[in-house]
Amino acid sequence: MSTTFKGMDPEAVRRITCIGAGPIGAGWAAYFLAQGYEVTSYIHDPVEEASLRKLIEDSWDALTEMGLGEGASLQKLTVTSDLAGAVEHAEFVKESAPESMPLKQALYEQLGELVADNVVISSSTSGMSMTEIQEKCSTPQRTVVGHPFNPPYLLPLVEVIGGEKTSPEAVDWVMRFWKVAGKAPLLMKKEIPGFVATRLQEAMWREGLHMIANGEASPEDIDFAILNGPGPRWALMGPTMIYHLGGGEGGMKYCLEQFGPALKLPWTRLEAPELTPELTQALIDGANRMADGRDYATLNKQRDAGLIAVRKARSKFGTT
Amino acid sequence: MSTTFKGMDPEAVRRITCIGAGPIGAGWAAYFLAQGYEVTSYIHDPVEEASLRKLIEDSWDALTEMGLGEGASLQKLTVTSDLAGAVEHAEFVKESAPESMPLKQALYEQLGELVADNVVISSSTSGMSMTEIQEKCSTPQRTVVGHPFNPPYLLPLVEVIGGEKTSPEAVDWVMRFWKVAGKAPLLMKKEIPGFVATRLQEAMWREGLHMIANGEASPEDIDFAILNGPGPRWALMGPTMIYHLGGGEGGMKYCLEQFGPALKLPWTRLEAPELTPELTQALIDGANRMADGRDYATLNKQRDAGLIAVRKARSKFGTT
Repeated sequence: MSTTFKGMDPEAVRRITCIGAGPIGAGWAAYFLAQGYEVTSYIHDPVEEASLRKLIEDSWDALTEMGLGEGASLQKLTVTSDLAGAVEHAEFVKESAPESMPLKQALYEQLGELVADNVVISSSTSGMSMTEIQEKCSTPQRTVVGHPFNPPYLLPLVEVIGGEKTSPEAVDWVMRFWKVAGKAPLLMKKEIPGFVATRLQEAMWREGLHMIANGEASPEDIDFAILNGPGPRWALMGPTMIYHLGGGEGGMKYCLEQFGPALKLPWTRLEAPELTPELTQALIDGANRMADGRDYATLNKQRDAGLIAVRKARSKFGTT
Repeated sequence: MSTTFKGMDPEAVRRITCIGAGPIGAGWAAYFLAQGYEVTSYIHDPVEEASLRKLIEDSWDALTEMGLGEGASLQKLTVTSDLAGAVEHAEFVKESAPESMPLKQALYEQLGELVADNVVISSSTSGMSMTEIQEKCSTPQRTVVGHPFNPPYLLPLVEVIGGEKTSPEAVDWVMRFWKVAGKAPLLMKKEIPGFVATRLQEAMWREGLHMIANGEASPEDIDFAILNGPGPRWALMGPTMIYHLGGGEGGMKYCLEQFGPALKLPWTRLEAPELTPELTQALIDGANRMADGRDYATLNKQRDAGLIAVRKARSKFGTT
């Protein structure tokens, strides 16, 4: 069940309210200021204002280097701990409150009354269900997950999914808004816990925790392995393209033939899915669409150039 | 049980034999040539020579940009399909044969007789056990896994672990050799299937396969999520440091307090380990050692600079 939603032109949005004073809430405020929006930051406790402003100011150099939008200014920031006032003129609300379901539900109950019902409320939750978050909200049709990655002002991904009571029009609206705002939104196909990227990241983290808990690797071993091994590739491509290139001239098809049987081996404590003909074909098709006509030699050349640039970039984080 | 191993000075190694004509075997040959070594490539079938040479030549631009070692030359490459001749003068053997246990066991049975017993034979296997690979080898004490990531000429990680019959001296020797040769070796604490980095990578890949098989995400969604979300961070740091920064000023300790309970949620199909006080402390200690005195603001600044450089590097792979 969902009520229809009708929003303003996403390109006309000027005033954004960001809820939350942590790295994510502050990061969103900084990002929107850098795109030229007027930003109101709501903080739960007035004592958080100094640390919020410092987080925002600390990100400004990076945002400047990435390129500021027209009218971008730190002067367009208002900080308040009055929730009603914070959202009164909001044309978009970005919620980055702590990850607690009772807290989010109580907040959405309030926001449901305070925020005009033609305005989308976007939650930064890392993996909780919007169906559950919107349970006590009287106007749930415009509440949509918009999950970023830290820092939200530099990483473009926003995972988008509504709850059961979210209107498809609100989801459409926010997908258009994210593109206007310069982000890379991913519309999820189903509401699954942890969404897409967090599930992938968590699977890796859990396997790492098992290894640390069993004395098989130290935290340093885990980090060393990632950043000297598969890590730099993930800056350039996801697992599908990595295995496509891993198959050499034969691409994904050859890769699955050669490494497919290894899925049955006890590599990781996660059970592998059956590599059915349908799944195999979906992977081959996906790899070919992403290769987009580029042959193996071309992909290899581009990957090498990218990896060299990535490896040079590592020294900025003090990594050699 | 292991027999003592006594190798030459790792700095004195000049002649290396690479076994295998695929992207990994060719990648190793290219890497060692670029470091100035004399390389003999053994290929199973003479028909593979042209494609092997092309793979090596195609990587030379990248290797040149990364900086060639003294005496580096494509002229120092010999290609042969005579195994005995290929290893006769070898001072180090890098085996990158196909991932088949019967094939590897038969190969190590031969190599055990053909290669001088003071020479290390290093397997590129992605996750198979050296204890099993060395079963039919008469001189198993110098056989050690050295697992690279593709392309081995650009990604520095080499995962190192011996089998039950491998001599600790051979493992010591090869750790020193990898450092002399300019790689980043990770000595594993235990012989576990899939080693460290492949287990981590596989956990993520399996979770992705489950999502694709269930219609929760397409291969493109998986890749899009990684490369616009957590991917760029993994070029700079591993999961421990990522969560340390995710905790804001409170670091890993705060992060585990806030997100620890999420480990119990059904994010990913992989069961989470218990977050015991010992595991919690190991993570906090590991994060602090890697932070190496850098405070949150410093780490944030360095990460931002790294991410900007990484994002600019992405365009080389045709990614915007």
